[in-house]
Amino acid sequence: MFRCAEIIAVGTELLLGNIANTNAREISEALAGIGIDVDYHTVVGDNPARLASAVEIARHRADLLLFTGGLGPTYDDLTKQTVCSAFGIPLVFHPEIQEEIRQYVEAVFHHAPSDCNRQQAFLPEGCTIFHNPVGTAPGCGFTDGGVTVIMLPGVPSECRYLLRHSVLPFLQTGSREVIVSRNIRVFGLGEPTVQEKLLTLMNDSVNPSLAPYAKTGEVLLRLTAKAPDAAVGKAMMRPMLQSVRDTLGEFVYGVDVASLEEAVFHLLAERNLTFSAAESCTGGLVAKRITDLPGASGVFKGGVVSYTNEVKNRVLGVPAALLERCGAVSDEVARAMAQGVRQLTASDLAISVTGVAGPDSDDRGNPVGTVFVGLDTPTGTYVRSLLLGGGREIIRTVSAHHAFDMLRRYLTGATIE
Amino acid sequence: MFRCAEIIAVGTELLLGNIANTNAREISEALAGIGIDVDYHTVVGDNPARLASAVEIARHRADLLLFTGGLGPTYDDLTKQTVCSAFGIPLVFHPEIQEEIRQYVEAVFHHAPSDCNRQQAFLPEGCTIFHNPVGTAPGCGFTDGGVTVIMLPGVPSECRYLLRHSVLPFLQTGSREVIVSRNIRVFGLGEPTVQEKLLTLMNDSVNPSLAPYAKTGEVLLRLTAKAPDAAVGKAMMRPMLQSVRDTLGEFVYGVDVASLEEAVFHLLAERNLTFSAAESCTGGLVAKRITDLPGASGVFKGGVVSYTNEVKNRVLGVPAALLERCGAVSDEVARAMAQGVRQLTASDLAISVTGVAGPDSDDRGNPVGTVFVGLDTPTGTYVRSLLLGGGREIIRTVSAHHAFDMLRRYLTGATIE
Repeated sequence: MFRCAEIIAVGTELLLGNIANTNAREISEALAGIGIDVDYHTVVGDNPARLASAVEIARHRADLLLFTGGLGPTYDDLTKQTVCSAFGIPLVFHPEIQEEIRQYVEAVFHHAPSDCNRQQAFLPEGCTIFHNPVGTAPGCGFTDGGVTVIMLPGVPSECRYLLRHSVLPFLQTGSREVIVSRNIRVFGLGEPTVQEKLLTLMNDSVNPSLAPYAKTGEVLLRLTAKAPDAAVGKAMMRPMLQSVRDTLGEFVYGVDVASLEEAVFHLLAERNLTFSAAESCTGGLVAKRITDLPGASGVFKGGVVSYTNEVKNRVLGVPAALLERCGAVSDEVARAMAQGVRQLTASDLAISVTGVAGPDSDDRGNPVGTVFVGLDTPTGTYVRSLLLGGGREIIRTVSAHHAFDMLRRYLTGATIE
Repeated sequence: MFRCAEIIAVGTELLLGNIANTNAREISEALAGIGIDVDYHTVVGDNPARLASAVEIARHRADLLLFTGGLGPTYDDLTKQTVCSAFGIPLVFHPEIQEEIRQYVEAVFHHAPSDCNRQQAFLPEGCTIFHNPVGTAPGCGFTDGGVTVIMLPGVPSECRYLLRHSVLPFLQTGSREVIVSRNIRVFGLGEPTVQEKLLTLMNDSVNPSLAPYAKTGEVLLRLTAKAPDAAVGKAMMRPMLQSVRDTLGEFVYGVDVASLEEAVFHLLAERNLTFSAAESCTGGLVAKRITDLPGASGVFKGGVVSYTNEVKNRVLGVPAALLERCGAVSDEVARAMAQGVRQLTASDLAISVTGVAGPDSDDRGNPVGTVFVGLDTPTGTYVRSLLLGGGREIIRTVSAHHAFDMLRRYLTGATIE
């Protein structure tokens, strides 16, 4: 097992403040999940001398160094050269990697790779190659003199992909203890409330341990055990998981699911039901989130983004008189939108969202954050009335959370409104 | 003027990956704006020994050190103690600061401050105090042995407030240079191609400088100048900006815009035109992206997420015979979807996306990444046929890019298909 890790992000754009170092956050979270302590993050520009000096410092204070960035095809991508030169390891050309890059570039860009891509096929001698099917830069890992080095591309989607698919398996090889986690997902209670309710549970146990993490509009509880193997770890966590379920009840929307939409996806698939969505202020976010999941077409028929009153009327059949009388942001219109889209798409269930995402209040004086979320079912229509805070993006995200939560509660027989 | 800066964020929550280091991004951006180069970011936990070692390293490689975090009232907030001890500067109690903290806590939390808040009124001897009206932790700055030290609270809103209101004025006393940037956005050419075309331009000029950054499916070129003021900097960049435009032509979709959808938004708003979207494989992503922008209702009427053939037929009016004959993923259906949604929503223009996002090929054997993007206009219908790589998320993202790009090209009179 490693003593401690350091994450070194390479890229002048980070030092100019163009982007935040989200790779370091994601890598840290993943390492925490397998019990590796991260002692430092370092960010350094595309500058070989300063990068070399950062490598020197890091290799003496950590035994796992994870680099992101600087693996691209351009002249300022110098991570491999600089790190390998610090460790005295030559770079070796891999024709099979060049071929992978060629196929990727041709498929995505419909032209042959440039000469520059050739440098991406050079990798440290004897390293484990992390093949990259979502970009051109392969990652790699090697151990030298008691220090393990991992290099990952800086593009966040590529970094994330290789982290999950290559780095975590690479790091866990050979370790004698495993860390197993269960992610308990909670919607409808704030983090302070969750913490209050679970305080004794959190303070009284070290292994397994329970810790809360606030996400946008929801709470993630991570239950973690160190154990000789995964089955033992899971068994150790079972009583605590049950206590959390008993304490939080129907606010727990799932265990080891990634999101509310994934929980809804499974519930619908099990029951062989479909839904549709009529969206105003969320503007397609509900549809986008359910269709992020492969196989969504089995449970989601589609939807209407009715961003204007005209579309609410023409496509969803919301009566013009109702829009006039109650305004688009109203309980009544949320109800009519859900009913309209359910009928239009002939789906079993339907949700609707209409509200004021901001930055300005609407022409009826509804304040920013006023949102109505509707659910139409064969046995009745439900509407949740909300006043959300946090600005446009958060209002849209949390509104979509509520839409999925209403579906989930309907499907599990919990209180809906 | 400073030689270079290092930003040191203190907080175990950063190393656990609970939050990204957005303070470092904001501070870097602000420093770039006043011409100060940032050479390193460091993140270290709430651990005095490791923080002390980070201070030792930083004071020898930078002459401006900015700390954030660890100024709170709790036992693990140790930044002031650790940094002052490294510089051999005593902490001095300020009763007037204690009084400010008392007033703030009583006004916001409706109770008296705790004893712990008392430690926040201790500040380095002889420092400039940065009064904090938006929280309890004051910031401070001092210079010792040629190194300037700034300490700011870690709460992002407090850090940001003190940065703007206290730190920038404190640092600019006596400064003579600013850094200005222009962001040139390119779609339709890969990073290596862009680089090849602009190599001479990139290598031949240091101030202004030009550097490429790959984003998902597009390229960002950043043009940067150091100058006595912003107007001079902008003038210095003008010839190079023109050369880039001349070289890349209609692949440049905007300068200083954040995204393709923002470019489209402005083009539509200027021309007072509206559009709508019929989405299959992107599942609402096009609609979601345009409605991310405040004011989208002026240019976007709405759309239909037609995730099943049934919805394509019932809602968009795509003939069942056409779906049967050509399959949902076809040039013909893309065409009919765009025409259908344009008519349904009575919008000026309409786009459509139908394709195979994966993970599996469709029932007609179309491989993953096969996508047809349609554009219907008063003067004709256009379809782009694509074979994209990179997995479900990237295929969806890049498909949406193409939809916006076709709109943009139509609106600017460029080649569309």
